[in-house]
Formats: sequence, structure tokens, C-alpha cells
Amino acid sequence: MPKEHKLQIIPLGGLGEIGKNMTVIRYDNQILLIDAGLAFPEDDMLGIDIVIPDYSYVVDNKDLLLGILVTHGHEDHIGALPYLMKDIDAPIFSTKLTLGLVNTKLKENNIQNVQTNAVKPGDSIKLGMFKVDFIRVSHSIPDSLGLAIHTPLGTIVHTGDFKLDHTPVTNEILDIYKFADLGDKGVLCLMSDSTNIERPGFTMSERRVGQMFDEVFRDAKGRIILASFASNVHRVQQVLTAAFNNDRKVAIVGRSMLNYATIAAELDYLDIPEGTLIDIDEALKLPGNQVCIITTGSQGEPMSVLTRMAMNDHKKMDIQPGDTVVISASPIPVNEKSVARTIDNLFKLGATVIYEPGSGVHVSGHASQEELKLMINMVKPRCFIPVHGEYRMLIKHGQLAEQLGIVKENIFVADNGSVIEFKKSGACIAGKVTSGRILVDGLGVGDVGNIVLRDRKQLSQDGILIVVIALSKNSGEIVAGPDIVTRGFVYVRESEKMLDEAKVKIQEITERCLNNGITEWALLKSNIRDALGKHLYDKTKRRPIILPIIQGVNKDNYLSY
Amino acid sequence: MPKEHKLQIIPLGGLGEIGKNMTVIRYDNQILLIDAGLAFPEDDMLGIDIVIPDYSYVVDNKDLLLGILVTHGHEDHIGALPYLMKDIDAPIFSTKLTLGLVNTKLKENNIQNVQTNAVKPGDSIKLGMFKVDFIRVSHSIPDSLGLAIHTPLGTIVHTGDFKLDHTPVTNEILDIYKFADLGDKGVLCLMSDSTNIERPGFTMSERRVGQMFDEVFRDAKGRIILASFASNVHRVQQVLTAAFNNDRKVAIVGRSMLNYATIAAELDYLDIPEGTLIDIDEALKLPGNQVCIITTGSQGEPMSVLTRMAMNDHKKMDIQPGDTVVISASPIPVNEKSVARTIDNLFKLGATVIYEPGSGVHVSGHASQEELKLMINMVKPRCFIPVHGEYRMLIKHGQLAEQLGIVKENIFVADNGSVIEFKKSGACIAGKVTSGRILVDGLGVGDVGNIVLRDRKQLSQDGILIVVIALSKNSGEIVAGPDIVTRGFVYVRESEKMLDEAKVKIQEITERCLNNGITEWALLKSNIRDALGKHLYDKTKRRPIILPIIQGVNKDNYLSY
Repeated sequence: MPKEHKLQIIPLGGLGEIGKNMTVIRYDNQILLIDAGLAFPEDDMLGIDIVIPDYSYVVDNKDLLLGILVTHGHEDHIGALPYLMKDIDAPIFSTKLTLGLVNTKLKENNIQNVQTNAVKPGDSIKLGMFKVDFIRVSHSIPDSLGLAIHTPLGTIVHTGDFKLDHTPVTNEILDIYKFADLGDKGVLCLMSDSTNIERPGFTMSERRVGQMFDEVFRDAKGRIILASFASNVHRVQQVLTAAFNNDRKVAIVGRSMLNYATIAAELDYLDIPEGTLIDIDEALKLPGNQVCIITTGSQGEPMSVLTRMAMNDHKKMDIQPGDTVVISASPIPVNEKSVARTIDNLFKLGATVIYEPGSGVHVSGHASQEELKLMINMVKPRCFIPVHGEYRMLIKHGQLAEQLGIVKENIFVADNGSVIEFKKSGACIAGKVTSGRILVDGLGVGDVGNIVLRDRKQLSQDGILIVVIALSKNSGEIVAGPDIVTRGFVYVRESEKMLDEAKVKIQEITERCLNNGITEWALLKSNIRDALGKHLYDKTKRRPIILPIIQGVNKDNYLSY
Repeated sequence: MPKEHKLQIIPLGGLGEIGKNMTVIRYDNQILLIDAGLAFPEDDMLGIDIVIPDYSYVVDNKDLLLGILVTHGHEDHIGALPYLMKDIDAPIFSTKLTLGLVNTKLKENNIQNVQTNAVKPGDSIKLGMFKVDFIRVSHSIPDSLGLAIHTPLGTIVHTGDFKLDHTPVTNEILDIYKFADLGDKGVLCLMSDSTNIERPGFTMSERRVGQMFDEVFRDAKGRIILASFASNVHRVQQVLTAAFNNDRKVAIVGRSMLNYATIAAELDYLDIPEGTLIDIDEALKLPGNQVCIITTGSQGEPMSVLTRMAMNDHKKMDIQPGDTVVISASPIPVNEKSVARTIDNLFKLGATVIYEPGSGVHVSGHASQEELKLMINMVKPRCFIPVHGEYRMLIKHGQLAEQLGIVKENIFVADNGSVIEFKKSGACIAGKVTSGRILVDGLGVGDVGNIVLRDRKQLSQDGILIVVIALSKNSGEIVAGPDIVTRGFVYVRESEKMLDEAKVKIQEITERCLNNGITEWALLKSNIRDALGKHLYDKTKRRPIILPIIQGVNKDNYLSY
């Protein structure tokens, strides 16, 4: 009997979380990878810069990998590529703008010889047994793709991040025909974006933001300072258009906004009206009502331009009474507080601040419930896997699919690492592969784990108290110390008495131990740690890390001179 | 010429922030204090438990203080009393429930002999030159008060935290007559709650939540686990009522929920239908559809009952498939992420979770724009001070007042510490008194300042690396070490090579210094810190705190044995 063919979908990231999207599609011994994104660290990942998926499954099977399909150029879809591409070798397929961003990223990380292949929405390619169709979708970055992956066992449709914008800025709307045609011919499995499943109705069109910009630009009496996501090229386009229509010049400030705008302009994604773009130095010389400054900082990042302006800490620009600041973004929850603080500071400096919710200067890039229903009904898949979302969102998206008639047994609310397996006989979750998160801190990839994070947590709460004692290796007597040094525990100048008491306490403990014949340093240290910990907690109700360090001093060192 | 009389309003907390509300009212040499609340620490206040206002102005003028008027029993209005009452002596005036909560708090802190005076909404008292009317308002805790303070220079109205609930749970609605009557007779200055100024329309009635509870309780097939704010006694009442009407018994779990319920029941604010309240052990034996468990944890606090249940970490209760969990609260922004994680975990355990927004199981306790307009138009004050809000909220509330006809010059968007002064001739901001925030960490009140917080921040990001060296006091030679200990920097087991290299580096630096005649320890330490810092940053792109500790070992110590 011939071996039964198997098709597997293995999400390695993006399930039960927002970010680090990565999915393996495997047919027998051939693999495609969709996206390789990063996530931003959660509150409890102290000091961590970014998080990437554990992609060891991909490395372990790298000889089977035929290609990487990238849906669009956001960090949560491309941010892990500089790490992954050090460990594997495979061609990357995506649209021109996405590849422009990918290549910049690879170059910054000194990764060479990666084969990147530009495709256009509407294109199809063959990769081994797979045929891949690239499908136009709308999203908050141009040239975003959905995918149809045809396999001998059926077709998988992946929406990528999408919304259904009937009036997009470039008139290139989501390819309804293609999705409907796929549905008509029969789709085995749909994977769809769950980000906005909790929002009823439809997501507003990007063009609405442009209309609001036009109003704001017409009404503002002084300068306009507009902050948005650097990658939202259509948003930047609408700023340029509104500025041109209202006789304002535009200056771009901030490295990230400049980078994106440069790449987008080079690749013809940005149509800059002649004479509209000027240098910031020039802009600062013009009357306020002829100027618009675009910058990032809409997320309240501490080092961003807008935050620095709000703190009066930017070297070239300050906020003046009469300025209108437009925050064309919606803060992610974790940044809400710092964005609110920035807005407060801008108000204090006398600016008019226009911000969400309710002002209309931002719309989401993700489909709301009615669009998600439309996608499911167009594609009419046999099986459904909600992707890109925290667990409750996946659950709700699954419930939505069930309401639309997808059979409950064919809806897979899965975890990262789940192997969703399709055979002629049916589909099931058939196991689990290695998956998880790898924390990146500076140059360290994966070296910071739970122990280091636990220490950082404790250090952040109550600081550290270090006890240093030098003992004679020969006699075991104290020859120097005990000395105490603290950081982040108490304000030392006002706590001298307490620290002196602590020293006496340590001296007592040490001497008692030594007198009782406890000479093993590990035991001595744990005695100090316990007794001092209790003493300090009674005095302060704080629990600093207590770190006794004992040095052995050799008598010989002394007799040598 | 006789001295001109002066009336001053001096907010010491609650302006430009949510929390730590405290306001001084001073007429010549007589002072009243309104509220003494705490704030919860912001993200960057690592390890801080709570924040209280700098009330040194009150202490400096304690002989002039006639009384403390407390509007209601929330922590942001009473939480600083245990600190303040150690430093001053004055009678406290408030309603029975509020005083019940205040007294519990004072008792926990061993503060005795505080004179507390119960008042009822509608009461008036004389305090020196002041006459104070206590006015019923609606809020998310029973017996909340607004205040009218009559002085020879005019009447000040303070709304306290309020909403206008036309159908409150107890049928005791905000005293519209009184506010209107005050307005009719003439009000010098209105201070009004700005918390919800950014919300259009009206805030929904608390009773709506009860109706939703009734639906949920009727439809749920298994147990109901309901989390809410412990202090929202009316909410708890509605749970009890819905349970009684739907033949469910109620068990209360969690210290804070039990405390509040006990105080509220003792003081007759809670009407517990006979036989409804049972013990948790008893509840766990009943069939699921006869049980409702009330608890806290609606804010995602790590130690709260619901969070522990969601983590499968509660000693008595676990979440089972078929349970319905109702989160009757709206998370404050800083907790949104952890609440979302709790909801995710509850879904994973198979529960149905009902949560905001959109589910109707929570309403705010603060007035939205239309109610705020009504308050201003009822009271028709000459001057207006928006209070209880971050800066942008105060600005917007001020703009609202201007739209309603209050003269712009009489609207004071002030800071904590501002002295808003009223004389016969007019009102102005006439100066500034000491104000600010005092950080409480364990038993330490105000001892953690910027230096300690900066250290905690750096420790939390990249950890600490400690270098210990023992030097001979006589020869200056190294007699022990250099030893390296780290916490929160790298995972030591995987970084041995790097740390060994660092040791060699330190040895080199130290010897080079000693050879070059640098024997001053401070200089030696800073040489080590700089060179090692650079070295480690190149290797890791991390910047741990580097802490060189040098011990001097005396030769005599060695020759003595």
C-alpha cells in the first residue's frame, strides 16, 4: 500500500499573541514558510529588546525548505528574518516594497547572498509540489499580500493582515474576484487575521483620514506637527497631498520616518508633489501656517521625536503655542500611559492636540467583524484556522466561523507549535513541534531566560545589597570587611544608621558561624543571606537581593613582600 | 485701612493626574482640607507601592486646620489619611460608610484618637467662618458626597467624584435640588470631576448592570464567577439580588472583597437576602447552576483571586469548562495587558468569559460630557476649576466651561500647589506652595527618590556586574580577586568565557593603574568601570551597572597569628 500523503500547517508564532507571525506549510517532504516576524517584549520581560519565534523546526528541516513567502513589510512579519537568515538558506518571495524593507534590514545585519524575488499581486509561482498565488489585500502598509497555496491535497488560503478598504488611497482594492474564485473552486483551509475580531462593524477607509487631514490643514492657524507610524506610506502620502492642497511645505523629522519615506519614494510608492518636501531647517524659517512637520512618536517611545519635543528636549524643534499636533495613530495598550503623558505635555506647551479616539485622524489596518464574515463567506473553506491574535480573539473568530456554517470539528483554535494535519481522510491536530519565544537583549539571542528575568524583576522592585568579606584562607578569620554596597534599595545618605546596624549584624553572624565551625563558604553565605534578609525586611518591608561575596586571602600573599 | 480678606483654594493633589486627591480651602487663617488620597505608582516608579501627596503645607499650617472633609471612601480620596493623621490632629467629617472604611484603615496603621464625625447628605455644619453643606451625589461607592463651602467671600462647590444616575440601585439620586438652589443663590467657584470629560453623552445607570446580571444569571448553565471592584457595594448588591432571583447561592472569595462586604453589611449598606450568602466550601459542593462566586481581580493584580484561578493556582477553586466568568469592571490602562492575559487563560480553561467593552456588565462611576455640562449649568459658578484629571482632561473641561459661558479669565486650569486666590476685587493664581509626590516603598515614606529609581531602572534593564578585589594596604598589590558576580546581566552558565575574559581585562586595568602610580581607589574604580563598561557593551550591547568594590587588607591582620 503506498504511503498516504500528508499536508501540515504548523504555526510557529502569532497564535495566542499579537506579533512574531510565522507559519510552516509542509506537504510530505517539502516546506514553505510564511513570514518571520518579531514581537515586542511584554511588561515582565525586563530589558528585552525584541522577541522572535523559536524556529528550530525550520532549521532542523532546512533542507526541505523551498522558500519564504512574506505577506508584507511590518516588523511582526519580517523582523525575525535577520536572525533566521543566518541559520538557513532559502529564497524570499514578496512585493517590491516589502523586499526593499527586508533588504535594508538584512544589509544592516551584514547578511549577504539572500536571494529575494519580487512578485506582483496576481502573480503565481511554482515551488516544488506547491503552486502559490499572490493576492492583493488592503492593510496599513502598501503592497500587502494574501496567499493561496495549492497542494495536491487542496488549497490553503492565508489572508495575511488585511482589511477591506473600498476606497483605498491608491485605488488598488483587495482582490475580491480572486478570493471569490478560490472559494468557488473549493478551499481546503482558510487562515484569517483575528486582530480586530472584537470590533463590530466595518473598519473605516484610509481615505477618511485624508479627508480629516484636509480639514485640519485648512483650519490650523499655525504649524502642523503630525506623528504617525513610519511604515504607513499611504498615510504619509495623504499628509503630502493635504499639505500640497493647503499650501503647506512638508519636512520629515526622525530617522525611522526618513528611512521609510526614502525607500518608498525610491520604489515609487510615494508621489511627492513637486516642491512640497523641504528640509527641516528651511521649514523652521517659514511662517507657521505654511509648514507641516511629519514625524514618528505616535507610540510614545521614550526616544521618539514627538516625545522629545513634548519634553522640550529636541535639539532643533520646540512646541510653540499655536502649533497643532496631530497624533495619527492609536496607541497599543502597553503604551497608552506614555502617549497620554506626551499629549498632556503638548497641551502644557500650548499646542492644540488632535488625537484618538473620536477625532478621525486614524483608522485601523485590520478587518472588523463584518469584513471577517465576508472573507469566510467568500472563501467558503472546509477548515478554518484563526491566526494573528491573542487566545480570546482566536476563540471568538472560531465562534464567528461556526456561526457562518463551518463545521465545528473543522475549526482549529491552535497553539504555536501545533501540527494541523490534513489527509484524504480528514483533518486533525496531529502533534506538536518545538516552538516558543526567544528573547533578544542587545547582541544576546536567547541567552536571557527565566533566571535572568527573575533577577531583573527583583532588582527592579527592591534593588540589591552586596556584602563583601575577606577571610583568611589559613585562619578563617575576617581580614577585611564586612563592607556593604547597595543599589536601588535605599537612599544611602539617609540610611547610614540602618546600614551600620546591618554591618554589625553581619559581623555577628559571621563570627557566630566561624565559632560554630561553619567554614564552608556556601553555608556561611546562606546564613548571612537569611538573617540579614529577615532583619532588613523587618526594618523596611523590602526584599532586596542579598549577595554575600567572600574572598579568600592567602597568607602567602602577605609574606611574599 | 483694614486688611483685605482672602479666600484661597490650593489643590495639593489630583490635578494633572488621576489619584491622590487633596485640596486646601483657606479663608484668612482658617483651613479646611478636602480628601487625602493616594495614587498608584506609574510604570517608571519601580518597586513603589503607593504615592501620596506632599502635604507639608498642611503640616506647616496644622494649627489653622479646622477639619478634614472626606467626599467618599475610595483609596484615591482616603488612602493618604494613615500618613497624614500621624502628622496632624483634626476631626474628620464624612458619611457612615466612608468613616467605616477610614476607621479600618487607621486601625490597621495603629493610629488612635482620631475624632471622626458622621454626617448625612443634606446635613450642614459650621467650622469656624465656614459653613459646609454635604450634598448627595451618585458614584461607584455608596454615600458619596459633594460639598458646598460657604465663606464670607462666597460659596465654593466641590462635586467630589460624581455621575448623574437617574435610576441608582438605592433610589437615592444626586441632589439636583441642592445644586440648583446653590446656583440660584450664587456660587463663587465650582470644582468639578474631570475623569470622564473625554466621553461624549451620558454615563449609563448602575441599574443597567443589574439587568445584564439578571440575563447572565438566567442563561448560564454552570457556575458563575464574577469579579468586580471590592468597594462597589451597589454592584455587589446587584449580584446578590440577581443570584436570589435566579436561585443561586453566593460565596465571597478574597480578603478585600470580604472586608468591604463585611463593613457594608454591618453598616446596613448591603441587603443580603436570607440564606443567599454561603461559605465557599459549601458552594463548591453545590451543583454549578446553583452557585455564584464573587471575587476581586478585575484589575489583573498578580495576586488577586481571579488571576490565580486563571493560572490554575488557587488553593480551593479551579476554573472548569462550563463556568461563566463575568468581569464586571473596566481595566485601567496600565493593567489592560494583564487583564487580557487573564481572560485568555480563562478561555483556555474552557470558561465562557463576559467582559468589557460591549457586554454591558460594567458602567463608569464618573459623569460624561452631558452630565458635566448639566453640573456647570445648574451651579452657574462665577469661577471654574476643573479637578480630578490629567492635564489634557482639565484643559478640555475648561474648554467645555467656556462653551457654556463661563468667562475665560475665571477658568483656572491649575497645577498641584497653585494658590487660586479670591478677593472682593477678583480671582487670580496668586502663587505656589510646596507640593509634589511622596513615594511609599514598604515602610519607607519618601526615602526612595530619583537616584534609587534610576538605579532600579538600570538594574531592571541590564542587571548588575560586581567586581571585587582585595588590595594589600601596605603594598597595594592584589591579594584576592578580581572576582566577578552578576545578577540580571547574562545567564552565567553560558557566559563563562566572557566573564573570564572580563576578569583578565580587570586584572590588566588594575595592574596598569597600579604600575602608573594610580593608587587612589576612587580613580582605580572609575578606570575599571569605564574600560569594563566599554568592553561589555561591545560584546553584548548591554549596559549593566558596574560596581567595583575594593577591600584593603592590612598586613598586620596576617602577622597577628
